[in-house]
Amino acid sequence: MPGPMVSPVDTLTASDAFARRIAAAGDGRLRQALSATVTHLHALIAELKPTPAEWRSLIAFLTEVGHAADDRRQEWVLLSDLLGASALVEEVNTRRPKLATPNTVRGPFFRADAPERPLGSDISLDGIGEGLAVSARVQDLDGAPISGAEVITWQANAAGLYENQQPDLQPEFNLRGLFRSDAEGRFHYRTIRPAGYGVPDDGPVGTLLRKAGLPLRRPAHLHFMIKAAGFETIVTHLYDASDPQLDADALFGVKPELICRFERAADKPCFRLDYTFVMARSKQGASA
Amino acid sequence: MPGPMVSPVDTLTASDAFARRIAAAGDGRLRQALSATVTHLHALIAELKPTPAEWRSLIAFLTEVGHAADDRRQEWVLLSDLLGASALVEEVNTRRPKLATPNTVRGPFFRADAPERPLGSDISLDGIGEGLAVSARVQDLDGAPISGAEVITWQANAAGLYENQQPDLQPEFNLRGLFRSDAEGRFHYRTIRPAGYGVPDDGPVGTLLRKAGLPLRRPAHLHFMIKAAGFETIVTHLYDASDPQLDADALFGVKPELICRFERAADKPCFRLDYTFVMARSKQGASA
Repeated sequence: MPGPMVSPVDTLTASDAFARRIAAAGDGRLRQALSATVTHLHALIAELKPTPAEWRSLIAFLTEVGHAADDRRQEWVLLSDLLGASALVEEVNTRRPKLATPNTVRGPFFRADAPERPLGSDISLDGIGEGLAVSARVQDLDGAPISGAEVITWQANAAGLYENQQPDLQPEFNLRGLFRSDAEGRFHYRTIRPAGYGVPDDGPVGTLLRKAGLPLRRPAHLHFMIKAAGFETIVTHLYDASDPQLDADALFGVKPELICRFERAADKPCFRLDYTFVMARSKQGASA
Repeated sequence: MPGPMVSPVDTLTASDAFARRIAAAGDGRLRQALSATVTHLHALIAELKPTPAEWRSLIAFLTEVGHAADDRRQEWVLLSDLLGASALVEEVNTRRPKLATPNTVRGPFFRADAPERPLGSDISLDGIGEGLAVSARVQDLDGAPISGAEVITWQANAAGLYENQQPDLQPEFNLRGLFRSDAEGRFHYRTIRPAGYGVPDDGPVGTLLRKAGLPLRRPAHLHFMIKAAGFETIVTHLYDASDPQLDADALFGVKPELICRFERAADKPCFRLDYTFVMARSKQGASA
């Protein structure tokens, strides 16, 4: 009985075959991305040598994540966040001079429609929490003030929850506001100290990370988005230096230059935070 | 106004931070897998430098794949198959001596409950298609026959469709059967020539691969699963050498030793296929 016939097809591993096939398909960003993705995926398989049962577990995990994701819950973004991928995408896209304020992940609680408020306003609409007076300056790399910068801030309340997580319990736009820096590049407002919080951990991503022993909490922070014509938009956090979770931010957003001490004010029964934001000129010379 | 405070947290990229954190979490296969996965994921991001918009496209793609996957359709398995990952997992798990019949992906159409049939049976229950007489031998690496091997075969019909894709149009168990090799290690049966077919391409995975210009067809083939006590189970395909898609199997399952010529039989109005399956002893000495 004859054996297999001689054939024009080389003995290729699936990796070689994929690489050849995608190269033959042509150029373009999609093929570049797919080629690099599959190269790393295959290298991972060659390295880990998953058993068929382990591969099925991966498929089952992806299936669960897919089913957990809906209009109100983006489990894929959570996975990207908790694996440090979102932070890294931000890092590779906004490399700045060392003295400029770095970007971090924007996170899921941003609202673009925060109402503009006069300098000095209190953005705590329910007054619940320990008072915090924020006073900041926006400047360029040479220390010159940037006036008219648009500053959007948002934060969790003293229980670690954002107003859009509790539409029935917090006033709309609680702890959010849009301010404009004055002629000296300064802005100031009143708020309350935010609390840290856990990321949504009741889905498959939380279950996996907990099983692996990885942290699922975020240290207390304020969010800022700062735009000024001719400068790269800053999207960043300021972290409370006293938070014990500072070394274990589940989203990998903590950088030393973003850690601040909320000082007790000498004259008033509240805390105060002073900070200087440093903007880098945008590479195109246009507003980002 | 003071700048940022001095901090005990080093300036880490998200990659360094993740590596440190997972190492600190301990050992075990899950952490090993997560660590290797994130290392490759971060290397991919560092290499491709996806823009935030590109990263959002990836999230949108994963979301679509997740929503396309349901009880009847495993879009994640399809993605794994079409990126060559399923084939590679099979390759890393069943490395065999050069002369042994290699494994390939099992594919989604296998049924474990195919009825046992006497040697010589015709498994084409509707008789539609060009006749094919299959005659094969199961032997070990030294050429000694393996008798009593359990051979399950399954295949598409002349339109490229499996009976479980067309439960209302094909008889149940059409083109499926379980045979046992005789004292000389031989088995034979009658069937029809299968046609090649397209993989399910109406979902997000098909859309992506088509956009990248990658093939979405499988060349014509027969499936075999062969079990014998003391030997590694063979799960493989035999491919029709005359199929023009032989070089472009969407599932990366074609290997030269699995390509066969369906010869026209001299005496009968049908095709014939002769093949020798070579089994490797299982490493544990037990049936796999």
